[in-house]
Amino acid sequence: MADRAPLPNEPLGSLDALTRALRCLPGVGPKAAQRMALHLMQHDRDGARALARALTHAAEVICHCERCNTFTEDPLCALCRSTRRDPAQLCVVETPADLLMIEHTQAYQGLYFVLMGRLSPLDGIGPKEIRLDRLLRRAGDGVVREVILATNFTNEGEATAHYIGEKLRTRGLKVSRLARGVPVGGELEYVDAGTLAQALRERRPLPS
Amino acid sequence: MADRAPLPNEPLGSLDALTRALRCLPGVGPKAAQRMALHLMQHDRDGARALARALTHAAEVICHCERCNTFTEDPLCALCRSTRRDPAQLCVVETPADLLMIEHTQAYQGLYFVLMGRLSPLDGIGPKEIRLDRLLRRAGDGVVREVILATNFTNEGEATAHYIGEKLRTRGLKVSRLARGVPVGGELEYVDAGTLAQALRERRPLPS
Repeated sequence: MADRAPLPNEPLGSLDALTRALRCLPGVGPKAAQRMALHLMQHDRDGARALARALTHAAEVICHCERCNTFTEDPLCALCRSTRRDPAQLCVVETPADLLMIEHTQAYQGLYFVLMGRLSPLDGIGPKEIRLDRLLRRAGDGVVREVILATNFTNEGEATAHYIGEKLRTRGLKVSRLARGVPVGGELEYVDAGTLAQALRERRPLPS
Repeated sequence: MADRAPLPNEPLGSLDALTRALRCLPGVGPKAAQRMALHLMQHDRDGARALARALTHAAEVICHCERCNTFTEDPLCALCRSTRRDPAQLCVVETPADLLMIEHTQAYQGLYFVLMGRLSPLDGIGPKEIRLDRLLRRAGDGVVREVILATNFTNEGEATAHYIGEKLRTRGLKVSRLARGVPVGGELEYVDAGTLAQALRERRPLPS
């Protein structure tokens, strides 16, 4: 429906427009978009109107936190404003989704810096695009003692962590990286060789 | 993000609301909704605004064709208004998506009736919900000669076709059903036994 030339008697102007518009969602192809459009019109017009309002409102008000660069509606996000977080720890993540995943663990009480990406020279994403200057200023505020690099363990995420780590270390900051190893609940038989090799190299003394 | 209690310092009001609103889309769970919301805010705010407009507009203007019951913005849909379609053939489908699939084949020149569902007594969907009275009136307009039942080949679709077929036959109309059999390009080795049995029972003489 979305990816063909309209028939001479194309029946569905607005529905077709909606189907096309739904393609802006990541992972939504022509078939899924058509299914979504028909579902909303047949079963959930109130949901469609609510979604429209949420989209308009979010596109209007959401900006980046001046301090940690994550999405927020205010100059400073709620995490950066909070007095219950430890300002001596700064966790560097690629995206707000990663930030939310770490918050979800409830195992971290420090603050964040969101790169909104990762170094990827082939895609034209260099230190400027991930706002490295802002991160260096943020980390050098005199309060931050440790920077925890929590970029992904992909090639680009590792390269980003390495690059940022070097810059931070020359400024005398303590820099750490999330531990790699066998996942909790993992069985050695099913762990890939790279992960297992890393877990061996980074083995830890048993707590006595 | 969508399915947990907000943390005391929940950072993302509008983004959270958008993530929740995206859940109204079929097949979109909490993770996908979060990914969509973040993607739109980070990479495609214009797309988000365009989608909002398309949703609002579609929810406002889309109604059902008075004649064939499909989605349209006008009292009569473009297909029903067309003078190039054969009014003696009426194809009964479950949904507008099925109508579009048949149009896509370019193998049918007649008109349609869209049930907007299928008989499903357990879900409270009876003859009234699929607008059987309207279909019977439509098929009895004196111009329709043949009704082609193109409901799905599921249990409910088959039952619906059987039920409608009986009603139409008692009114003296020619009623047909889409052919079942081996798919075009299909290999017998990989066709399920039910389909193969049906293809045997409904075998056709070779054209000479």
